[in-house]
Amino acid sequence: MRPLAITIGDPAGIGPEIVLKACADPALRELPLLVIGMRALLARVADVLGLPLPAAIEEPPLPGFDAAAVQPGRIAALHGAVAAACIEHAIAGCLAGRFAALVTAPVHKQALHLAGVPFPGHTEWLAARSGVRDETMLMYHEQLAVALVTVHQSLASVPASLDALRIVRVGVQLAEALRRLRGREPRLAVLGLNPHAGEGGLFGDEERRCIVPAVGELLQLGILADGPLPPDAAFTPAARARYDGWVCMYHDQGLIPFKAFAFDEGVNVTLGLPIVRTSVDHGTAFDIAWQGRASHRSLVSAIRLAARLAGG
Amino acid sequence: MRPLAITIGDPAGIGPEIVLKACADPALRELPLLVIGMRALLARVADVLGLPLPAAIEEPPLPGFDAAAVQPGRIAALHGAVAAACIEHAIAGCLAGRFAALVTAPVHKQALHLAGVPFPGHTEWLAARSGVRDETMLMYHEQLAVALVTVHQSLASVPASLDALRIVRVGVQLAEALRRLRGREPRLAVLGLNPHAGEGGLFGDEERRCIVPAVGELLQLGILADGPLPPDAAFTPAARARYDGWVCMYHDQGLIPFKAFAFDEGVNVTLGLPIVRTSVDHGTAFDIAWQGRASHRSLVSAIRLAARLAGG
Repeated sequence: MRPLAITIGDPAGIGPEIVLKACADPALRELPLLVIGMRALLARVADVLGLPLPAAIEEPPLPGFDAAAVQPGRIAALHGAVAAACIEHAIAGCLAGRFAALVTAPVHKQALHLAGVPFPGHTEWLAARSGVRDETMLMYHEQLAVALVTVHQSLASVPASLDALRIVRVGVQLAEALRRLRGREPRLAVLGLNPHAGEGGLFGDEERRCIVPAVGELLQLGILADGPLPPDAAFTPAARARYDGWVCMYHDQGLIPFKAFAFDEGVNVTLGLPIVRTSVDHGTAFDIAWQGRASHRSLVSAIRLAARLAGG
Repeated sequence: MRPLAITIGDPAGIGPEIVLKACADPALRELPLLVIGMRALLARVADVLGLPLPAAIEEPPLPGFDAAAVQPGRIAALHGAVAAACIEHAIAGCLAGRFAALVTAPVHKQALHLAGVPFPGHTEWLAARSGVRDETMLMYHEQLAVALVTVHQSLASVPASLDALRIVRVGVQLAEALRRLRGREPRLAVLGLNPHAGEGGLFGDEERRCIVPAVGELLQLGILADGPLPPDAAFTPAARARYDGWVCMYHDQGLIPFKAFAFDEGVNVTLGLPIVRTSVDHGTAFDIAWQGRASHRSLVSAIRLAARLAGG
C-alpha cells in the first residue's frame, strides 16, 4: 500500500502532538503512515512531550523556516504558512499518485488568512486543486454516516439551493463510499426538507420538486434509496437499524443527530474528490497545545477510515 | 384532586383500547381518571378485548348514537362526530374548572373533517376554544424537553416567521412548565437557526435580529437561558446533561433529536393554554384497532405528566 499522508495542521495547535501520538500508537502499527511536516518542529514538540519522532517524515519546502519561531497557542502568519506548505505538498503527492490518501490535522482559518491563503478551509482548497465542484461533506461513524447536500449557508438560503441533480450526486457519492466500507450495497435514507416531508405538499414543495425525482433517479441507478423520509422519523432506533447512510438536505439536519450520538468519534470525509481525504472532527484547541493533554482518538479514527477507503 | 379527563379519540382507532388498558393499569390506581366517551362503545370494546369497564365514565351528548354502527379501522363521519363530542365536552369541563386536566387519545384528521369539524387537530381546537393565540407544542421526556417556536410550516417560511417576542413567550412557557415538574429553576438552551448559530452573521442574521434579543429578555425575566447555541452542539451528551429544556426554532430541530432518543415514551404537551393538556405521541393506528395489540405506554406517560402539571 502507498503511504497515507498525514498533515500536521496548524503547528501552534494540537496538530503536531496528535500526529506524534498517532504515529507512536501500536493500534496503527500496520499502516504506512507518512507525516507531512517540518522535521525540526516535530522534533521540538516530541522533545517537549517525551514522544518518539516518527520514522517517516516528508518535509515540504518552506525557505527560511525556523522551528524555534513557532509559538504554541498563538495565531501567526508563520503558522499559517507552515500549515499551507504541508497541505500543498500533500495534495500534490496525492494527485500524482504517490500517496494513497490524505488525512488532515486541524488548521486555523485566521492563520491561513494571515499567510495569504485564499481558502477558508481544507475542503475548498482540495476542491480547487482537484478541479472539482461537487465535493460533499460526509460525517462518518460506524453507526451513523450523514452526507450533506448543503453545508455552510443560512437556513433561509437552503430551499432555493436544492436541486435534484445535486441530491443524486450526493447519493451516488455516499453509496460508493459505503459500498467500499461495508463490502455490500448500502441502503440510503434520503430525507425530506420540510416537517413530515411536506405532508403531501401542505408545507413546502421541495419534496415534490427535487427530492422525489432525485430518489427516483437513484433507484434507476440501482441504489437502494428510500425517501423523502419525514426528517424526524429518519433517526429513530428503527431507522438507524435499517439504513447505512443518510442524505441530509442541510447542515443541522445531519449534524444534530450525528453529534448527539457520535460527538467524540466522528470522522469528516470529503467525497467527490479524486483523492481519498479524511479529517479529525475537532479544531486546533490552542488552549491545550503542546501540553500532552490532547486526545489523538479522532485522528486514529480518521487514519483508519482513510486506509479503508483507500482499499488498504 | 379534580378528575383528569381522558378523551377516547377516534372510536375506530386504538383510542378506546388504550384508554381501557390505562384505566385498568395498577400503575395509575391512585389517579382520579375520568373517561370522556360513549359508555356503550366502551362496553363493546371492553367485551371484545376482555378488559374491565372503567369506574368513572362521563358521556357527552350525541343524539341517536348507536355503538353498533362504529366500524374499527374505518374513516367515517360518525367516528369524527364521536371524537368531536368527547373533545368539546372535555374542553368545556376543563374551562369550567370541573376537570384538572385534559389527556387526549389520537383523532383522525379526515374523520373530523367528514364530521364538519373546522380544526385540523386538538391543538388548534383548544387554542380556539380558549381564546389563545400563543399556544406552544412541547415534546416532553424526562431526559429531553423540546418546545417549538414554529411547528407545521414549510422550512422556507421559518426564517421570516421568527420574532423575538414569540421566542420569549416560548421560553417563559417552557420555564414555567419545567419549574412545576422539576421543583427548581430550570436551565434552558435557546438554539440558533443557522449552522454554527450563523457564525457571527456569516450565514444568516436571524440570531442577531431575533434570538440574541430574546435570550437577553429571558435573562432580564430571571430565566436561566443560554443561547443562541449552535444547533449541532445543543444535543451532545454534555449539553443534554446541562440543560432542562430546549427552545427550538423549527419542527425538526427539536423533533429529530427527540425522536432519536425518546420515540416510544414521549408526551405531547400544549403550553400557553388556560388548561393543562397532554396527549399521546402516536396516531390512531387503524391497522391494529380493537385487536388487543396496542400499547398504552404513551397514554400512561401522558396521564402521569398531566397529573404532575396539574399539581397532583
